[in-house]
Amino acid sequence: MVRGRAGMLGGVPLPLPDVPARIVAAPMAGGPSTVALAAAVSGAGGLGFLAAGYRTADAVAEEVARLRAASAAPFGVNVFSPVPAVPAEAARVPAYARLLEPRAAALGARLGDPVHTDDDHAAKVEVLAALRPAVVSFVFGVPPARSVEVLHAAGVPVWLTVTSPEDAVAAAAAGADALVVQGWEAGGHRGGGSDAEPGELGLLPLLALVRRVTDLPLVAAGGLADGRGVAAVLAAGASLAQLGTAFLRTAEAGTAPVHADALAADRPTTVTRVFTGRRARALANRATAELPADAPAAYPEVHALTAPLRAAARAAGDAGELHLWAGQAHALAEAVPAGTLVRRLAAEAREALRTAWDQGSEQPAQGVGQRRGGPAGQP
Amino acid sequence: MVRGRAGMLGGVPLPLPDVPARIVAAPMAGGPSTVALAAAVSGAGGLGFLAAGYRTADAVAEEVARLRAASAAPFGVNVFSPVPAVPAEAARVPAYARLLEPRAAALGARLGDPVHTDDDHAAKVEVLAALRPAVVSFVFGVPPARSVEVLHAAGVPVWLTVTSPEDAVAAAAAGADALVVQGWEAGGHRGGGSDAEPGELGLLPLLALVRRVTDLPLVAAGGLADGRGVAAVLAAGASLAQLGTAFLRTAEAGTAPVHADALAADRPTTVTRVFTGRRARALANRATAELPADAPAAYPEVHALTAPLRAAARAAGDAGELHLWAGQAHALAEAVPAGTLVRRLAAEAREALRTAWDQGSEQPAQGVGQRRGGPAGQP
Repeated sequence: MVRGRAGMLGGVPLPLPDVPARIVAAPMAGGPSTVALAAAVSGAGGLGFLAAGYRTADAVAEEVARLRAASAAPFGVNVFSPVPAVPAEAARVPAYARLLEPRAAALGARLGDPVHTDDDHAAKVEVLAALRPAVVSFVFGVPPARSVEVLHAAGVPVWLTVTSPEDAVAAAAAGADALVVQGWEAGGHRGGGSDAEPGELGLLPLLALVRRVTDLPLVAAGGLADGRGVAAVLAAGASLAQLGTAFLRTAEAGTAPVHADALAADRPTTVTRVFTGRRARALANRATAELPADAPAAYPEVHALTAPLRAAARAAGDAGELHLWAGQAHALAEAVPAGTLVRRLAAEAREALRTAWDQGSEQPAQGVGQRRGGPAGQP
Repeated sequence: MVRGRAGMLGGVPLPLPDVPARIVAAPMAGGPSTVALAAAVSGAGGLGFLAAGYRTADAVAEEVARLRAASAAPFGVNVFSPVPAVPAEAARVPAYARLLEPRAAALGARLGDPVHTDDDHAAKVEVLAALRPAVVSFVFGVPPARSVEVLHAAGVPVWLTVTSPEDAVAAAAAGADALVVQGWEAGGHRGGGSDAEPGELGLLPLLALVRRVTDLPLVAAGGLADGRGVAAVLAAGASLAQLGTAFLRTAEAGTAPVHADALAADRPTTVTRVFTGRRARALANRATAELPADAPAAYPEVHALTAPLRAAARAAGDAGELHLWAGQAHALAEAVPAGTLVRRLAAEAREALRTAWDQGSEQPAQGVGQRRGGPAGQP
């Protein structure tokens, strides 16, 4: 059992801010996570998130300022941990680029320069330590020790994303205040420390296996789209439920229309490296079907390579070449205001917990909808 | 919304028997599901299951008689639906057999005859209609219409196993009284109608997507190993939680010792066709690593082919060649009496629901372990 910092008040007051709805809007870099979405979610009692990925430190600071002008509620900001370069995989990128060239040309685009960057990691961490959001979360493994130190020194709790028990051990040892536990069902990039996860653990077994190695608070993510799913992970012991895809069609999200429309259909998802060089769950489309399953595991080089192609696809409304990030329950995502969704999810989750309790009460259930007094046994 | 037979009393009194613990011990053919295990589970308030697969109809009748002599509690019996022959895949079996021959020889075994059978389906259904267990469940898709008719005419509820919303539509249309909803996390064979499921849905999204297409009672299965997981699927709307791997190490299970020992380790699982020609989740081992990922999708031909090899591996205690069926949470399986496990799971699930409710109550939580009155708000 790796003991984390939770409750050890070394300058960090609380690992979890007060989130009455117990709902977190997952950070979704590349457009969907807007200031308006974070404000609406936090305003409804959830925890809104800004996504610092693919933005400059200055742009992040500007978003934080706009969010604070729009809402006084707590919010989080997500930052990418630097991903180590893998020369053997980077060496495969030129051959992959030749496969992509005709696809880019068909959209009138040219491929980008496949550079390896750290997404301006340190500068963003410094900015956020100064701005002090309620939480800073990281994806892509454990960040440099200095990033955790800088945030803790500023009193900012740090959440690390894990997709395996091994990740959880590493995250707790690195000083995480809470863990975002991302199941295999989740849309978008795999957020853990390894791009080649053995076991590909679904959310419920992952929560149970992570709980075995740490007592840190857990934020459950992956394939959640309704109040019953929220209730499920709270019953499984998570402190909060994080939903991403469920917010992609909300009015405040910055999701490309072609993406938002595609989510509503019943179609399978797949986990693929073809878009960015790192595994991510997306709707299966022409690109995932036609491009090789063994695309180079070179992130962010492949991301940079394909970015202009995907931007052209987005502009053209071409759902076949775009990275249509989607969790497995994407067909349940609704086009409603985000605040309405947060309130509805919280109410539905509460009702689901009550119903599950009632149906397990000592007296045999008399039928759906009947209510008893709940845990206290009050009639 | 496909309306099922639930509540329509056409000779079938109740789709679900009375299961106070809300726990079902999943049927596990090939040895683990013993009469003693079913008796212990049913005796503790769960629903025990016999596994008719790979047995003769006479042997099934004899097991039912022994179980009834041991326990008066309700139990279920699981039967395989006939799997259609796929000639193009069967044609690949001889080449696959050549890969297996040296492995069999190393264990002093010879390969079996790769015959296609229906596992004596109709005879088992007739026997079970006469013996009338509380439930007959099927895996491998929808059985012949006559099988459902015969059981319904005898007043036996029929549960069908689904791994996709499409399966759920087909199962409801075929007259299912309840659905066993098997998530991607589950150990052993994929139990749905297709061996090539698009989407590979985790249990929570699968429950949500199935609920969208049917109002039948749902039995949730896949990767559940503790009371919190049970609570989670009940909160997600399932009527019962079905656990298989969690029972594999119990005293009453007929699990091979080499299999039971392997489950306790932290090691990844994989979904593979190499053992039987049908996808199943197993601990990754020498066989899954060395045999081709595109093994023939020929079930049960490959099962029959490899059966003597696997029997020899079992006898020799060789964990490298044996099919070590395991759900993703296998490391949590405990070597305890099955009745103890059922009672503990039920109590832990109840506590998990209470805790989740308490933590979401209007007053901010004051700390772990504090209790309030529950849904009725009683202090």
